[in-house]
Amino acid sequence: MKCRKCGAAAALELRRHNAAFCAPDFLEFFRNQVREAIRRYRMFTREERVLVAVSGGKDSLALWDVLIDEGYDTTGLYLDLGIFDYSVESKAKCQAFAARRSVPLVISTVADEVGAPVPVIKQVTRRPACSGCGLSKRYLMNRVALDLGMPVVATGHNLDDEAATLFGSVMHWQMEALPRQSPALAATHPRLARRVKPLYRLSERETAAYAFLRRIDYIVEECPFAVGATSIAHKQVLDRMEDGAPGAKHNFLFGFLEKARPVFERAEGVELHECARCGQVTSGTVCAFCKLSDQVKRARA
Amino acid sequence: MKCRKCGAAAALELRRHNAAFCAPDFLEFFRNQVREAIRRYRMFTREERVLVAVSGGKDSLALWDVLIDEGYDTTGLYLDLGIFDYSVESKAKCQAFAARRSVPLVISTVADEVGAPVPVIKQVTRRPACSGCGLSKRYLMNRVALDLGMPVVATGHNLDDEAATLFGSVMHWQMEALPRQSPALAATHPRLARRVKPLYRLSERETAAYAFLRRIDYIVEECPFAVGATSIAHKQVLDRMEDGAPGAKHNFLFGFLEKARPVFERAEGVELHECARCGQVTSGTVCAFCKLSDQVKRARA
Repeated sequence: MKCRKCGAAAALELRRHNAAFCAPDFLEFFRNQVREAIRRYRMFTREERVLVAVSGGKDSLALWDVLIDEGYDTTGLYLDLGIFDYSVESKAKCQAFAARRSVPLVISTVADEVGAPVPVIKQVTRRPACSGCGLSKRYLMNRVALDLGMPVVATGHNLDDEAATLFGSVMHWQMEALPRQSPALAATHPRLARRVKPLYRLSERETAAYAFLRRIDYIVEECPFAVGATSIAHKQVLDRMEDGAPGAKHNFLFGFLEKARPVFERAEGVELHECARCGQVTSGTVCAFCKLSDQVKRARA
Repeated sequence: MKCRKCGAAAALELRRHNAAFCAPDFLEFFRNQVREAIRRYRMFTREERVLVAVSGGKDSLALWDVLIDEGYDTTGLYLDLGIFDYSVESKAKCQAFAARRSVPLVISTVADEVGAPVPVIKQVTRRPACSGCGLSKRYLMNRVALDLGMPVVATGHNLDDEAATLFGSVMHWQMEALPRQSPALAATHPRLARRVKPLYRLSERETAAYAFLRRIDYIVEECPFAVGATSIAHKQVLDRMEDGAPGAKHNFLFGFLEKARPVFERAEGVELHECARCGQVTSGTVCAFCKLSDQVKRARA
């Protein structure tokens, strides 16, 4: 198999693009997909400071790597979830990456902010770990961006992540979630940062190949709480469909973004207030994060 | 396990309803689901003549059986597709059923109407057999209903069929097909019969159990052209999801009907004309059926 661009021996076949690339041309293809994502959704400009949420995994470090090389003004944000060795190792990967590339990394610790790490939150709330964890991550990403005066948070969600989330929303027809599924969510309130996903055009296999070829040292293990998550079951369904029809995931996600999402966008927006406790944005009086941290603190007292 | 209604030994467990039934109470549950479907979508009244499209399979014969017992004025319609032994046997099952129940059965033969049976249509058009077959069936069902002065055609589509069709439409975000996915399509033109699916609330397993308990003699084999159809692959995906979460199919289809379908219904309807050749309804000048039969006749000449 030969590289589509230069005709040299190909290192990677991309069936859904009916193409193969040598290593240098694959890296360029990858960067072009990120450029196209940023351009198409006007995610951010070179004049804006971008907060890149990094977990230590391949996707978010690949994203940070591309954005640095493209000359964007980035700061990393690592959220320490306190999930045993997984958190210790993933934090070390982020710190090593930041040191090697001489870029700033901010660390925020869930145990300090909520009152307990994710495993204890799980016990106190008696809900799946991903529930309190996801809530805390979304809250802290936004608050850190505001505190640092950064208008936009970029996350490493890839095509497979987005297709799996969409699949879950569609199987239950979650009419609140569907219009919010987008590679870019605008800041609809002065105390909300823009949220963007510059890797939404790239598959998990492609981000893994990029990280490998760029010799990025990332944590390979999945979060121990992810075992048995429905998002993983949904990924397996989509993987099987992709095997049968290359491009199935791409068509599912992109067809939604182009054709169906506009239909779901409700004319009337949700009314947003500032939380009476912390001042962050909420649709209620006290935000879900403050309620969670109250619950955790009461249980530990 | 005990019957939810009478406490006797259960014959059938319905996990998605978290219930089990003895044979008589299951039959009553089944009839109640059909009654609920007819009521909810005002499918037809006892004063209307109903054309029941029967294939000889379990679903359509179970449907006909219930409607006869409920006292509706039904006529069966068997479309002879000319698919080798499959058609010979399925026709015989329909004729035997009609004779046993003393109800009228109309037979329309695709080879007479289109100029060739389905296997030849497949060859001539070089398209999947299901393409020309589905087109011919929809056309002939409507024309026979009009010719007989019957306002409504009922088909045996069950919950699994409807969920699989919806799944295919969603994976490709077919924006034309999505608003048309419904248990009841109104007659939007004087030359269109209403189309209804009174079994949409019942799973394939439930229609099989009904047919078994009612000793209905149906054709067990699938159409030979159905092998490898994407609808079957989609059913397998949904079956796996149902295994993991009983009710998944139900929630997917019913959630769509309740929450999402209204969003897809376009304000502007398609403009309908009468075909210049046959007078049946089409969105063009000459309808797809007339074009198909022209193509077949030219090829055979």
